[in-house]
Amino acid sequence: MRVENSNGETLKDTSSKAAKDNAEIYYDNDDSDRFYFHVWGGEDIHVGLYKEPLAQDEIREASLRTDEWLAGELALTGVLQPQAKGLDLGSGYGGAARFLVRKFGVFIDCLNIAPIQNKRNEEYNVQAGLADKITVRYGSFQDIPCEDNSYDFIWSQDAFLHSPDKLRVFQECSRVLKPGGVMAMTDPMKEDGIDKSSIQPILERIKLHDMGSLVLYRSLAKECGLVTLRTFSRPDSLVHHYSKVKAELVKRSDEIASFCSPQFQENMKRGLDHWIEGGRAGKLTWGGMLFRKADKL
Amino acid sequence: MRVENSNGETLKDTSSKAAKDNAEIYYDNDDSDRFYFHVWGGEDIHVGLYKEPLAQDEIREASLRTDEWLAGELALTGVLQPQAKGLDLGSGYGGAARFLVRKFGVFIDCLNIAPIQNKRNEEYNVQAGLADKITVRYGSFQDIPCEDNSYDFIWSQDAFLHSPDKLRVFQECSRVLKPGGVMAMTDPMKEDGIDKSSIQPILERIKLHDMGSLVLYRSLAKECGLVTLRTFSRPDSLVHHYSKVKAELVKRSDEIASFCSPQFQENMKRGLDHWIEGGRAGKLTWGGMLFRKADKL
Repeated sequence: MRVENSNGETLKDTSSKAAKDNAEIYYDNDDSDRFYFHVWGGEDIHVGLYKEPLAQDEIREASLRTDEWLAGELALTGVLQPQAKGLDLGSGYGGAARFLVRKFGVFIDCLNIAPIQNKRNEEYNVQAGLADKITVRYGSFQDIPCEDNSYDFIWSQDAFLHSPDKLRVFQECSRVLKPGGVMAMTDPMKEDGIDKSSIQPILERIKLHDMGSLVLYRSLAKECGLVTLRTFSRPDSLVHHYSKVKAELVKRSDEIASFCSPQFQENMKRGLDHWIEGGRAGKLTWGGMLFRKADKL
Repeated sequence: MRVENSNGETLKDTSSKAAKDNAEIYYDNDDSDRFYFHVWGGEDIHVGLYKEPLAQDEIREASLRTDEWLAGELALTGVLQPQAKGLDLGSGYGGAARFLVRKFGVFIDCLNIAPIQNKRNEEYNVQAGLADKITVRYGSFQDIPCEDNSYDFIWSQDAFLHSPDKLRVFQECSRVLKPGGVMAMTDPMKEDGIDKSSIQPILERIKLHDMGSLVLYRSLAKECGLVTLRTFSRPDSLVHHYSKVKAELVKRSDEIASFCSPQFQENMKRGLDHWIEGGRAGKLTWGGMLFRKADKL
């Protein structure tokens, strides 16, 4: 999620290439891998949907709830037919891909830029007997290595925030979707109407140039021939999720110290605080959108 | 939903009293009752969530899907505990109240201004053996006839649009919610940023002075001490629902003619077209929000 390397160094993200490198550096190192794998949610490393009281819910369950929710929303559009072909952009460890394949009998291509994650994704797929239904590819959603009009649906969770050229991402998504195809995505975002300057300290801490918003994504989608079907803003999930990850970090600090550097833990904790504060202040949210490649609703 | 009487006359809605009367006149007459009861969705008369392809889905199933969805969202906040006390504002025939009572073991007070609907609601509750868990009251959400801090949750579907004084509605909701209580609501709305003037023909046809929007409701909520937990905008549901009701009206016109006047049918069809066109043009949407009576997320 947050683009900083394990030493907390600032990473420039002024080009597509740089963004790819930043996210790759962030996710593709041993501290990150171990932290996300052991603390965040195992196979799923996106924001969860929590059931209150928060203390009685688990990150892993909440992450799965997100998959179920977004899949349910996507299913209503009718694209999750057996044998349908989907593309997961920023697929991480592949938890969502396996969930979708198991539940709907679809095929998924996973596109992701962190080889450490991709390797684990492929191992899981083999263990689950799903290797013939899921293909894992190294690559960036800035330049999707696929033919035009190839997918019935696109799925992307908390990945687009890393892109400094979000128009390019939407152009690519529209290009590879079949006509009538649907994209379901989630992302941490600015609240609509929040100016970059008012979240500058947060952006600096999380090493991003700027963030998307529902209004921005909707406008980019329109520019690329994608009609907005639905939008969801869940600031409570943003605050819940980062609060929960932070609580886990504190509670299990001795254990986590055995596989993550103190510097990494400290940076992570500060980053989490910024997300929590931004959500509480009404500046940041986390949400999702569904778009269809079509002329009209 | 639309405030016009069965002869399609324009009804002024410049005061609380007038709004109550308009909605009462609209819903509390035999044509409306028979139309909503036989065509719209039976026990549930709100916008549905459709599974595409639309032709293969039913209004009644889609309406139930809305109840399940909104209840699922509300359940995540932790307020739907057994014995919890809820208030349904604009409760219609009470379909949602019975659903919530059955599924969660809660108690519900239904507040509604159409005696014809209230009578049917009470009959259903007796038939279902739920009369001890659901109380039906005649009244307006502009002046909720309840004590301060009495409810664990408020539920309202597609009702607030009738109010010309939405601040007053939110003040009343905040007043009767217990601290920490949650309100879940849905409503047909303007898209954010859409000016009243650009939907004037629609407003005139549907006999409303103006409409709410996510931005407006969020701001009113804040003014009344309610924190926004989540917002949902589903323009596709708006278009689907009114398209489906219109298709039903056309398909069953002979049957409907036996219990609704031709004038009522004609007005209804024109009203439905305006909703559909407004949704397709990106001017109108239908969506929901969850608020908590609290200081912060």
